Amino acid sequence: MKSLSVLGATGSIGCQTLDVVAAHPESFRVVALTAGRNIDRLAEQTRRFRPELVVVGDAEDAAEAVERMPPGTRVLHGRDGLIAAARHDDASMVVCGLVGAVGIEPVYAAVDAGKDVALANKEALVAAGAFVMARAAATGAAVLPVDSEHNALHQCLRGEDPRSIKTLWLTASGGPLREVPLRELASITPERALAHPTWVMGRKITIDSATLMNKGLEVIEARWLFDVGADRIKVLIHPKSIVHSLVEFADGSWKAQLGSADMRHPIQYALTHPERLPSSRPPFDLLAAGPLAFEAPDPERFPCLPLAYEALARGGAAPAVLNAANEVAVEAFLERRAGLLDIPAVIRQALERHGDNPSATLDDILAADRKARETAVHVLACGVKP
Amino acid sequence: MKSLSVLGATGSIGCQTLDVVAAHPESFRVVALTAGRNIDRLAEQTRRFRPELVVVGDAEDAAEAVERMPPGTRVLHGRDGLIAAARHDDASMVVCGLVGAVGIEPVYAAVDAGKDVALANKEALVAAGAFVMARAAATGAAVLPVDSEHNALHQCLRGEDPRSIKTLWLTASGGPLREVPLRELASITPERALAHPTWVMGRKITIDSATLMNKGLEVIEARWLFDVGADRIKVLIHPKSIVHSLVEFADGSWKAQLGSADMRHPIQYALTHPERLPSSRPPFDLLAAGPLAFEAPDPERFPCLPLAYEALARGGAAPAVLNAANEVAVEAFLERRAGLLDIPAVIRQALERHGDNPSATLDDILAADRKARETAVHVLACGVKP
Repeated sequence: MKSLSVLGATGSIGCQTLDVVAAHPESFRVVALTAGRNIDRLAEQTRRFRPELVVVGDAEDAAEAVERMPPGTRVLHGRDGLIAAARHDDASMVVCGLVGAVGIEPVYAAVDAGKDVALANKEALVAAGAFVMARAAATGAAVLPVDSEHNALHQCLRGEDPRSIKTLWLTASGGPLREVPLRELASITPERALAHPTWVMGRKITIDSATLMNKGLEVIEARWLFDVGADRIKVLIHPKSIVHSLVEFADGSWKAQLGSADMRHPIQYALTHPERLPSSRPPFDLLAAGPLAFEAPDPERFPCLPLAYEALARGGAAPAVLNAANEVAVEAFLERRAGLLDIPAVIRQALERHGDNPSATLDDILAADRKARETAVHVLACGVKP
Repeated sequence: MKSLSVLGATGSIGCQTLDVVAAHPESFRVVALTAGRNIDRLAEQTRRFRPELVVVGDAEDAAEAVERMPPGTRVLHGRDGLIAAARHDDASMVVCGLVGAVGIEPVYAAVDAGKDVALANKEALVAAGAFVMARAAATGAAVLPVDSEHNALHQCLRGEDPRSIKTLWLTASGGPLREVPLRELASITPERALAHPTWVMGRKITIDSATLMNKGLEVIEARWLFDVGADRIKVLIHPKSIVHSLVEFADGSWKAQLGSADMRHPIQYALTHPERLPSSRPPFDLLAAGPLAFEAPDPERFPCLPLAYEALARGGAAPAVLNAANEVAVEAFLERRAGLLDIPAVIRQALERHGDNPSATLDDILAADRKARETAVHVLACGVKP
């Protein structure tokens, strides 16, 4: 039986993680749950899964949570609460469904404490992959990817010698804007960019899917997860999201992982690895899926993707800067304070300004993240250069 | 460095095996080569690869071969020669590219001697899978499938617990007759049935691809190779022959192996396993391949496929009978002594007559094989009941 600490329990990944837990009560127990503002859902989850610890956003939320959680539930809040959940003595695995750079420190804390991590948070690897993976290697913590793409690569690489990898091929649905005329991209509304054709996900990641920044972040993530250079990580558009990713080996053989576009599958894989437990989800029907098509991504339509490769090539704090500027710009886009094409423009300016910041420590990375956010806010306030 | 004994060296699999050996001279040496009648090609191969032993079909061929092989080459012939090549003291691996039931005894001899076998011969497992696999398990010999489909399954199962297999999905191109109107099947010529759309293979296996008997034999083979029941082995038509097969796991995840339709890939995989050496073949281009489509096989068009499942369900010697009757009927079809639809009819009659023969020993299997051949010859001579 694995004991789970679930960070970001009330979000999309957190809720689906608890679906998997509920389907396999003999395999998992929950020792900690963390949430941001959604105390209602956290209270419901806490009644059901009886964690020893819950963590909420701030002191005010904590005061409310103390009233509403079952008696005896310990309540913490903020950054320190997240770190406590990540290092929880009774947790054998930490599931990180936190969205954004807020995930960096808890993920580092979890691997530092030797906990296996089921990782759905991209930013911990995008911004701090070198630190997280080195620390995990030192403590023996496993980092199991929940992202369907990296999860697919992890599955394809089971039993394989990493030295035989020729290329990691990440698939991307291409999102809702794959076929929109290029001239319309500047005036795309958040509603339209949020209408993802295949995956149901949180708002931030859905916009990242529309710009392909999501795939750019995944390229960086894959670089650290699998210790493979950027020249050997490539992206394919695969609109149906059935083939979740592929590995090309040195001997000319390719392996692919495929299945329904349902995050409960990769979540369960990460939670149960190396075992594969029966799924409670409907079986995947390859015949019903229809032909599987692949195409090359168009860099003109998706300028965020080459920006991610650029950040990886710059190295150091540049991916953290890319990610931070993107977070700020996506938020502005969702709040209608910026257009879709402002997103790559803001990132480009942040990279120009902070792309060569030092990155000797995790604190340097976090500082670069903060500076990039300030720059992005400033650029958005003063008008974005196209 | 692996030392290879190559059975059936002058056939399609044998020649491609030697292509792989030639591309990796640092990894392989050849200790024995066997051929049937093609002494010209065997002499050429022997000059190039310098085996200690060559084996030819009969005493007359052997007399010719002694003259034409490099001095010092030992020459044997017939069944005993094949067995000697299969048990060769210096061989660490036996590559079996023999076509037909003639492969059964040498493959058994090889695993009995503890040699790893790279197996392209289907019949050894179809007819005698229970014996071959039990003996291999006892001696510690590995059986590495060369058939692209089983090779694909082997790759997908690396690092996986066999208990987590839900279904093995074998792909079939559907062959050259997939879209021929059903009423034309009775009058199909050998030339048309030999025009395989994707794979370049020997004549017997190409006809078996046109009838899907090839896939039926592979279902039986998979049953023994992977110790999975027939109810968990299924067939999909995939006309492009790019996805070579797939595994569906208990947790709802599928894995596929894909690449060019070039037998040198699975041959090299079997020869170098568990390593993957660089390939000298052109890289596979998924974008150029176009969409990948799958469909269910039509049992009316391909009656040999349900016959194979029936033989597996009967068990014992029934698969040997199926295979033997098919060999005789395919030969008759290639020699224009029978029509395409006579093939399943002959098999059906042989199964009715011999499908419940005993199979306590390998000799029982070989006897059932002989009787089924006699019956098939008789049925063909006396007129096939449709």
